[in-house]
Amino acid sequence: MPDQPAALISLQQHLHHTRLLGSISSALYYDQNTVMPPAGAAWRGDQLALLASQLHERQSSAAYADLLAAAEDAAGEAVGGDVPDALRRNLQLLRLELERQRCLDPALVQALARAQSRGNALWQEARRSNDFSAFAPGLSELVQLRRQQARQLAAAEPADRSPWEILAQPFEPDISKAQLNALFTPLKEVLPQLLDRVATASAGPEPAASARAAGSPAELPEALQEQLCSELLQSWGYDPSRCQRSRSAHPFSCTLGPADFRITTRVVPGQPFSAFLATAHEWGHSLYEQGLPWGDDHYFPWPLGEATSMGVHESQSLFWECRVARGRAFAERWYPRFRTGLEADPWGNASRFWRQLNPLQPGLIRVEADELSYGLHIVLRYELELALLEQEMPVAELPAAWNGRMQELLGIRPASDAEGCLQDIHWAEGLFGYFPSYALGHLISAQLAETLEADIGPIERHVDAGEEATLQGWLAGHVWPLGRSVNGAELVERVSGRPLSAEPFLGYLEHKLERLLAVG
Amino acid sequence: MPDQPAALISLQQHLHHTRLLGSISSALYYDQNTVMPPAGAAWRGDQLALLASQLHERQSSAAYADLLAAAEDAAGEAVGGDVPDALRRNLQLLRLELERQRCLDPALVQALARAQSRGNALWQEARRSNDFSAFAPGLSELVQLRRQQARQLAAAEPADRSPWEILAQPFEPDISKAQLNALFTPLKEVLPQLLDRVATASAGPEPAASARAAGSPAELPEALQEQLCSELLQSWGYDPSRCQRSRSAHPFSCTLGPADFRITTRVVPGQPFSAFLATAHEWGHSLYEQGLPWGDDHYFPWPLGEATSMGVHESQSLFWECRVARGRAFAERWYPRFRTGLEADPWGNASRFWRQLNPLQPGLIRVEADELSYGLHIVLRYELELALLEQEMPVAELPAAWNGRMQELLGIRPASDAEGCLQDIHWAEGLFGYFPSYALGHLISAQLAETLEADIGPIERHVDAGEEATLQGWLAGHVWPLGRSVNGAELVERVSGRPLSAEPFLGYLEHKLERLLAVG
Repeated sequence: MPDQPAALISLQQHLHHTRLLGSISSALYYDQNTVMPPAGAAWRGDQLALLASQLHERQSSAAYADLLAAAEDAAGEAVGGDVPDALRRNLQLLRLELERQRCLDPALVQALARAQSRGNALWQEARRSNDFSAFAPGLSELVQLRRQQARQLAAAEPADRSPWEILAQPFEPDISKAQLNALFTPLKEVLPQLLDRVATASAGPEPAASARAAGSPAELPEALQEQLCSELLQSWGYDPSRCQRSRSAHPFSCTLGPADFRITTRVVPGQPFSAFLATAHEWGHSLYEQGLPWGDDHYFPWPLGEATSMGVHESQSLFWECRVARGRAFAERWYPRFRTGLEADPWGNASRFWRQLNPLQPGLIRVEADELSYGLHIVLRYELELALLEQEMPVAELPAAWNGRMQELLGIRPASDAEGCLQDIHWAEGLFGYFPSYALGHLISAQLAETLEADIGPIERHVDAGEEATLQGWLAGHVWPLGRSVNGAELVERVSGRPLSAEPFLGYLEHKLERLLAVG
Repeated sequence: MPDQPAALISLQQHLHHTRLLGSISSALYYDQNTVMPPAGAAWRGDQLALLASQLHERQSSAAYADLLAAAEDAAGEAVGGDVPDALRRNLQLLRLELERQRCLDPALVQALARAQSRGNALWQEARRSNDFSAFAPGLSELVQLRRQQARQLAAAEPADRSPWEILAQPFEPDISKAQLNALFTPLKEVLPQLLDRVATASAGPEPAASARAAGSPAELPEALQEQLCSELLQSWGYDPSRCQRSRSAHPFSCTLGPADFRITTRVVPGQPFSAFLATAHEWGHSLYEQGLPWGDDHYFPWPLGEATSMGVHESQSLFWECRVARGRAFAERWYPRFRTGLEADPWGNASRFWRQLNPLQPGLIRVEADELSYGLHIVLRYELELALLEQEMPVAELPAAWNGRMQELLGIRPASDAEGCLQDIHWAEGLFGYFPSYALGHLISAQLAETLEADIGPIERHVDAGEEATLQGWLAGHVWPLGRSVNGAELVERVSGRPLSAEPFLGYLEHKLERLLAVG
């Protein structure tokens, strides 16, 4: 943005400084999860709290409000009322975020931070001892505080937004329950039917359909898994001058600067594909971040250079994990590499190798769920969040509600709360409104993939030819540069020409299921 | 410090916050040198500059000055004029540092930062192209600015301190040229004689004395070197819950929090002992840091919990590298491990293995120097710093002065400035006054070791019994807990009962040399 008025330059400097602090925080988080010895945690917590308070101050202070107001004035004056789109959008997003920060009573912000920390501690203990009642008071407090937060934030929101919708805005801008209903209803209808089809098929004499148990080795040598992850990244454009892969207990992706991208993976005993698929997944997140409109860094501090929603972010990781790495053509190509140095071939042929990359068996744990049942795990959580936040369901009823609905949706019932409503960390930290983004990611990925295939032909054909770069090129041309110029729903409509629906996802699943079951 | 006056608590909070920022900076530095992809450097530079400016502000602001003054008043009042030693010393050290900060013209601080950055860039290029004249203007500017800095700082220093002495204070508190003269004169006399003795011995028919060339394998497998480093640390009390070892281009040790200690090593092609000895060295630094009086963290933000001087710090790393790891008993014990998995034994016996751990050949490069010639490299630099800063020697004369003095001291002459006066980074960043600490480390280490041996018997005997923990225990009892309660010279006198001298070091070298030459 050359030749800007002074007020805009001051604002950009403020944002640059804010972004520096935010990225320092990310660097500490990365170190904490990859390198830091455990005893460093207390001091690290103090460091992060210091940065968080500096960040909050910078994002909500009267000085910043003045800076933003001056920039808004200057933008209008400088261009005679005709503010360029990008600048208008940047200022709009900054204004919205500031108004939200300023709606909040600082006492509530502090109470929430304390309750989140307490909730996390209670949850750790409750999960360990499988005792929901130990967690219930913490969860109850978090629900109350978050409802209070939604009431305070309502002043900055459209009048018709419900408390749950308000809390979901940071993750999925402009999301509504009506939209989610329209998207989730087909999932609730069709996914159980698909699961039934799998169950029927696997009830026959052919045991191979019972997922991971059949055919896959319990272990692939760790060095081989590491090697495969490296080769995968190399073939997908990993540039060691800008990227770094480390190991951590839970895989994640994070961006530490405009040219500093990190991902982490782990080797999981007994899950021979876990590291490889997680690498594909996290690299998908990272590719999106790398493709955001930062260019020469001038967008990095501005909102337009950010990811637009968690759903879109997840769509990019799922594209590379599910559409590409779990696809048949990819399995055909990589099957020989997975056998490197193994004494016996645990799969026998490429079809069975591909089949093992795609387990199809409903389980109790969301993070281990296959593509068929994943959406139902989310529906369950979304319904229960609404019940807790908007329908006065007492926290004490959560375990029974969870188990009953799990039985209805997936046909299985947790034997304990530890593998039921205590399995995820999100609620323990007061994170309500986030889960649907995971399911939206599947839907968005499928709809964008349909458009991509209409445009440049089947994904499998490109993968078969070893030309994943073409797929990257398409995403880099159509999806990544949009940044926050559009929200998630608008992005899908802009790219695919029609509103987001569940249809492409369900169509993709039916087709893939048919082919998988044909293998056995 | 329980039951403190409010002003002391406020001061401690301020220092805690300052220490958090400083340690965040260290965490970024650690990440930069171990993990960060190269393209992240520009943004990382911005992050570090932001933290540096926050730190400078916190350490020199009027608000901080008020806080310190209030604490000084409160300390005096609270105890009726009889301030406890520890508190008095803490306040004294803080006051001294504040007065130094406040002597400096902010314009000079900025000019120095720019000149350091420029100096580094010019030096990189000059060293690459072996062209001292490209570096000379940058060095000249740095000399002028540092002289100016010394003039400004003089207001906070005793009247008789010279410019060089003033600049050396941050590294070696209370150091004087008179002290250094007394310590370095014997080095200049004796070390060349010892080098002559080696030369005479190696001129004979026995080729083994020509250091690394003879007997040592060009390479030890990297995995073996890594394994040996891990075993070394494990046997020396490395606690993975508080410590972390990573790899970096140049080995270093740093502390990121009161329970978070990092060291780094590297495997150097063609130098089979480099990683192992560097691990011993860096772990020595880390042990000292771990043994500083932090206890329950109440000393961590206070000066008393800090290392007292670079010379003492270096004495601790050199103790473990030279006195222990390069010692004969240690070599006897580790010789079998170094042969693990090797097809042939490259050394033949433990004596020759030990001999190879102790090269004895003067070279041009300081960081590769042996124990005999290292001190002379420092004498050279110290004399040239005095010439530049206090004796008006023109920068242009540096190369000739360097080469001439190198010939006199070590009997060798650089063929190029790249392996002469351009070899170190210190001056390129305006770092004058630092080099002597390296030599002081050798002297202090020897004098402390002599006391230790008088107290609990020969180091070799403990090592022979695999009881290095006893050595650690002695240092932990006598040296580490002193923190900054004493300066480096006082520490040596306190522990050994007499002033620091070169005698123990030279005595140690003569004895070791005799034994080494007996091997061949």
